[in-house]
Amino acid sequence: MKFSFKNDYSEGCHSKILEALLRNNTDQQAGYGDDEYSLKAKILIKEKLKNQDAAIYFVSGGTQANLIVISSVLKPYQCVIAASTGHILNNETGAIEATGHKILSIETEDGKLKPSDIQLVLDNHKNIPHQVMPKLVYISNSTELGTIYSKEEVKNLSRYCLENNLYLFMDGARLGHALTSEMNDLTLEDLSQLTDIFYLGGTKNGALIGEAIIINNQTLQEDFAFNIKQKGALLAKGRLLGIQFLELMNNDLYFDLANHANQQAMKIKNALLKRGVQFLSDTYTNQIFPILDQKLIDILSEKFDFYIWKNINSQSSAIRLITSWNTSDKAVDDFVEIINNHL
Amino acid sequence: MKFSFKNDYSEGCHSKILEALLRNNTDQQAGYGDDEYSLKAKILIKEKLKNQDAAIYFVSGGTQANLIVISSVLKPYQCVIAASTGHILNNETGAIEATGHKILSIETEDGKLKPSDIQLVLDNHKNIPHQVMPKLVYISNSTELGTIYSKEEVKNLSRYCLENNLYLFMDGARLGHALTSEMNDLTLEDLSQLTDIFYLGGTKNGALIGEAIIINNQTLQEDFAFNIKQKGALLAKGRLLGIQFLELMNNDLYFDLANHANQQAMKIKNALLKRGVQFLSDTYTNQIFPILDQKLIDILSEKFDFYIWKNINSQSSAIRLITSWNTSDKAVDDFVEIINNHL
Amino acid sequence: MKFSFKNDYSEGCHSKILEALLRNNTDQQAGYGDDEYSLKAKILIKEKLKNQDAAIYFVSGGTQANLIVISSVLKPYQCVIAASTGHILNNETGAIEATGHKILSIETEDGKLKPSDIQLVLDNHKNIPHQVMPKLVYISNSTELGTIYSKEEVKNLSRYCLENNLYLFMDGARLGHALTSEMNDLTLEDLSQLTDIFYLGGTKNGALIGEAIIINNQTLQEDFAFNIKQKGALLAKGRLLGIQFLELMNNDLYFDLANHANQQAMKIKNALLKRGVQFLSDTYTNQIFPILDQKLIDILSEKFDFYIWKNINSQSSAIRLITSWNTSDKAVDDFVEIINNHL
Amino acid sequence: MKFSFKNDYSEGCHSKILEALLRNNTDQQAGYGDDEYSLKAKILIKEKLKNQDAAIYFVSGGTQANLIVISSVLKPYQCVIAASTGHILNNETGAIEATGHKILSIETEDGKLKPSDIQLVLDNHKNIPHQVMPKLVYISNSTELGTIYSKEEVKNLSRYCLENNLYLFMDGARLGHALTSEMNDLTLEDLSQLTDIFYLGGTKNGALIGEAIIINNQTLQEDFAFNIKQKGALLAKGRLLGIQFLELMNNDLYFDLANHANQQAMKIKNALLKRGVQFLSDTYTNQIFPILDQKLIDILSEKFDFYIWKNINSQSSAIRLITSWNTSDKAVDDFVEIINNHL
Repeated sequence: MKFSFKNDYSEGCHSKILEALLRNNTDQQAGYGDDEYSLKAKILIKEKLKNQDAAIYFVSGGTQANLIVISSVLKPYQCVIAASTGHILNNETGAIEATGHKILSIETEDGKLKPSDIQLVLDNHKNIPHQVMPKLVYISNSTELGTIYSKEEVKNLSRYCLENNLYLFMDGARLGHALTSEMNDLTLEDLSQLTDIFYLGGTKNGALIGEAIIINNQTLQEDFAFNIKQKGALLAKGRLLGIQFLELMNNDLYFDLANHANQQAMKIKNALLKRGVQFLSDTYTNQIFPILDQKLIDILSEKFDFYIWKNINSQSSAIRLITSWNTSDKAVDDFVEIINNHL
Repeated sequence: MKFSFKNDYSEGCHSKILEALLRNNTDQQAGYGDDEYSLKAKILIKEKLKNQDAAIYFVSGGTQANLIVISSVLKPYQCVIAASTGHILNNETGAIEATGHKILSIETEDGKLKPSDIQLVLDNHKNIPHQVMPKLVYISNSTELGTIYSKEEVKNLSRYCLENNLYLFMDGARLGHALTSEMNDLTLEDLSQLTDIFYLGGTKNGALIGEAIIINNQTLQEDFAFNIKQKGALLAKGRLLGIQFLELMNNDLYFDLANHANQQAMKIKNALLKRGVQFLSDTYTNQIFPILDQKLIDILSEKFDFYIWKNINSQSSAIRLITSWNTSDKAVDDFVEIINNHL
Repeated sequence: MKFSFKNDYSEGCHSKILEALLRNNTDQQAGYGDDEYSLKAKILIKEKLKNQDAAIYFVSGGTQANLIVISSVLKPYQCVIAASTGHILNNETGAIEATGHKILSIETEDGKLKPSDIQLVLDNHKNIPHQVMPKLVYISNSTELGTIYSKEEVKNLSRYCLENNLYLFMDGARLGHALTSEMNDLTLEDLSQLTDIFYLGGTKNGALIGEAIIINNQTLQEDFAFNIKQKGALLAKGRLLGIQFLELMNNDLYFDLANHANQQAMKIKNALLKRGVQFLSDTYTNQIFPILDQKLIDILSEKFDFYIWKNINSQSSAIRLITSWNTSDKAVDDFVEIINNHL
Repeated sequence: MKFSFKNDYSEGCHSKILEALLRNNTDQQAGYGDDEYSLKAKILIKEKLKNQDAAIYFVSGGTQANLIVISSVLKPYQCVIAASTGHILNNETGAIEATGHKILSIETEDGKLKPSDIQLVLDNHKNIPHQVMPKLVYISNSTELGTIYSKEEVKNLSRYCLENNLYLFMDGARLGHALTSEMNDLTLEDLSQLTDIFYLGGTKNGALIGEAIIINNQTLQEDFAFNIKQKGALLAKGRLLGIQFLELMNNDLYFDLANHANQQAMKIKNALLKRGVQFLSDTYTNQIFPILDQKLIDILSEKFDFYIWKNINSQSSAIRLITSWNTSDKAVDDFVEIINNHL
């Protein structure tokens, strides 16, 4: 059995979550998110946000979070601006368009949007009413390329959006990894002040399912629960989401797990750097994209699963390695050993 | 703490499911439903259906199952026919209409549709192209009123739908309870032959989440997975659904749990019948609707939670009692004791 | 060739419209509704509304007007309340649901909604967030049964909607006929004060195509043009709509045409009343529904086209007769003569 | 008053259309496209197509035609492939996405798609079911850049689409101009054999409104009328569309008008070529894009309206000139005179 570095959702969940599910299994709770675990988890999250006025909703996964958020805040003629690498553009089977909204794509080097990128889009959308109206800026942190936003960058985007009457929405499927990266200077509190909506991803960080949508802009909070129900995302046993986030938030388990994933990736990255390996992008989270010789890729493939991300030339490719909350030292060490033996 | 008869999803899940989640927690599995548990669970279900050509997909809940099935089989101008009590009509925040499709509502006595009901609708929809085209017949088994369909009734509907070029879709959120009712003569095999699509509800029968959509009509199977992904219903950790259905199908745990729920309800029903209590509808599943005096309702309310379903007159109301896979003998006995003491 | 009383759109348009089209045919105008005719027509309409703050948009037909208005003012989880006879419910191929919104249907005697009808719906929609949120009240004037609303009735609805945070939208496909009915006491000015949106129907009152949507509620005016374009309703040669409404508004031609239609219907109605004929509903506009013996229906059918509206018993049916802006005295006289000869 | 070269829909319609509207104004006709003019026009078009099995529907405009065709042939998870200059991408307010479908954009030099362009898209959409499924190829002829497809090019696309299970749909808003271009070798008969659906644009070629949608693929014909009605595009007075297309088809008026527009554009083009002017694209239809010095643009702007299309450098820009069915010799001569005087 090969060890997989293909993604961060190939294992189950952190043992504390299973223990809590077991511990609370037989008590009767109100359905649809009104259980006491969900309520407590929301209180905990608000404390970390230092924002009692945030509204918090739990849903099952990232695509679901993205489509519910976007379809509920936009009017029919309004659209989304996203980096071309954005998950909503090419990895969600047109889920956003299926709710009626166009996504305008911007090419970037590192998967991150800048105000100047957005300005170009606005400049090209002035033929009213013949074009869609750009209204929501979608960013991912960490991005689909493993990169992260600095506080300064999010501040600039936030200011720009405010000035231009745009919403700023952060896809946080891997927000834990972003916020625990060694290069990070953002906090949850910052995000609660700087974005209109963002979410804390659980699925890719040790939960079975679950993303916590956090609505900071109060004008967007009203009636949000209707949208969750209408899209089929309101779990009868909301306790399943509540219990998980309660455990993840307790004692910052959420951040410990993400930090673990990042560190395992950094160990591999550093081993590769020492041997002079180049990377497709310079990342400090749990996704790394080393460019390796095909021979070495073949050797690694005997013991490990991972994606070939991009062909560089006839002899080498960038591969994508993703570590998780549960990636063991042994897996990392074995991988590094092969590297060291062959480079 | 009162015991709740409000619904069948107030507790967690059957202990075997938690044990299996624990047992398999750390093995790495393919994502998005390609894990080995999901594959095994599908094999088991197909065996029970005696239909190797069925296509099976797991999703999280009933509203999600309903909206995905309906939106993926209908063309934009086609609509649904449902009993006015149908869950999709008044309990899903317009989820079906949100995908673009009208639901035509038919008043019934017992929550069940008959061919003659549908014929009336077809007769009234002949003004082409100014009216929607009826195309899918939605039935629930057991119904939202706790009643069930007989084999003869489903056969008649099936034949009628075939003759009239309609799809027959059965909402099986409580299918376990229907199939284990003492009055039932339907089997999973029958349903696989008589319906185009139906689903096996897990959420209301001992799972944390999960409904198994079974597509019998092969022309409707093609590309179905795209719809699940597009609606945000494809879990990254599909193992969560696979493991649950594997446990539920093993040794027919699914039917044992439903049977338990039914029997607990029947105990209460029989106790009430002995005292001459009338019921809003004559049910043999885990939902009963006794008509009680307000005084007795008040007394019961001190120890039990349940819904007042319908005011009958100034002094009495029908209440709804729902038992579950986990309703204890003690809860039932305590309830019956109060009944016996006061009637 | 039989004369048709089937509808009010079987002829072309009033000659003044054709003359204006001819007169202005070769001048170059801005496209998409920015032509000078559209601008002038809007000025004229605002004068008649005595409301300079109204926003006015021209579209081609009634279904188009209905779907654009409703889809642009509702949020995804909000729905429409309408009388069961409402045109949007059963005569528009699910156009409203196709934009994602449910319509809640209310049975009425005369096609008109009352606050008490709506209150019942609101009372039954308190299970948040599991039900759609009623938000827009759709009424037709004249109704699909030929009846009209009094000023008092619209005032009551308007007040009720305001108190309950609902929008009031009047389908005015036959508004001309309503406002020129002998029983009418409403004015355009009233409607501009009492409704959030209404429209002035041209198609059924002497135009080739065209409905003038009038948005009184200023919060609903913003960006409305985007919706028109997105739904494919923004004509490149908006002049076609502008010229028509300019002619119809000039010297109140619009009202003269509707009045003519009403009077022709009343002539037939009065002739029938004299002979003791009963009617399905008591109407004073261009739609009448006399209940006639099948024999007489057969005789009339030799010279006239009309719809059999409803079977009353084995020997008699209600027929629907619709007169138009262009119904000649001769046609009416011929019809009345047959009546007089056979009753 | 300046003469406008901004577009081909700034005047009314050809006088024969107005004469026919006048001539037939008072006869009573069936509504919703069942009038005798529509029926006759369809017969005439089928003759020209040499395809009796085509299904033909008239709608008001191009955006309407595009959104109805695309939304009625695609399943929810299927998408469109279009050149980045395609009208549906940036000039229709997201009308296609509003029906739930993504458009994949391809950069081209001349606004025309090639099989190799499409192959790249297919190659990049193999991650089933996480990506939309490309299903319909949208091409415009003439294109938004004024270029046209050769018979060989359409044949290649048609074969490629057939082999890859894709639909081929041609936006023919300016099809008349394409088919009468001096470089054209396509016929209506060819298009009826080579495309699944295309339309004949009337609005930009001498009609008041109107596009004739021609469905060649018989599997796509079924129930199409429902879609037209549901999108609000079925005119009560369908005669308005029928009469126009009857006149346009009679004696090939449609092609004469387009030819006139092309020739007027070619006169200007040739005058500019003689003076050595460069063009943004090499066109032989009624759209030309000469690159002119800002000084000359200013001089021309005193007497003519046109769009500045693209800034080339600080001193020169490409302008867009569009001629129409009604562009007079005088307008062309005046324009050419200024050119000759200043170059």
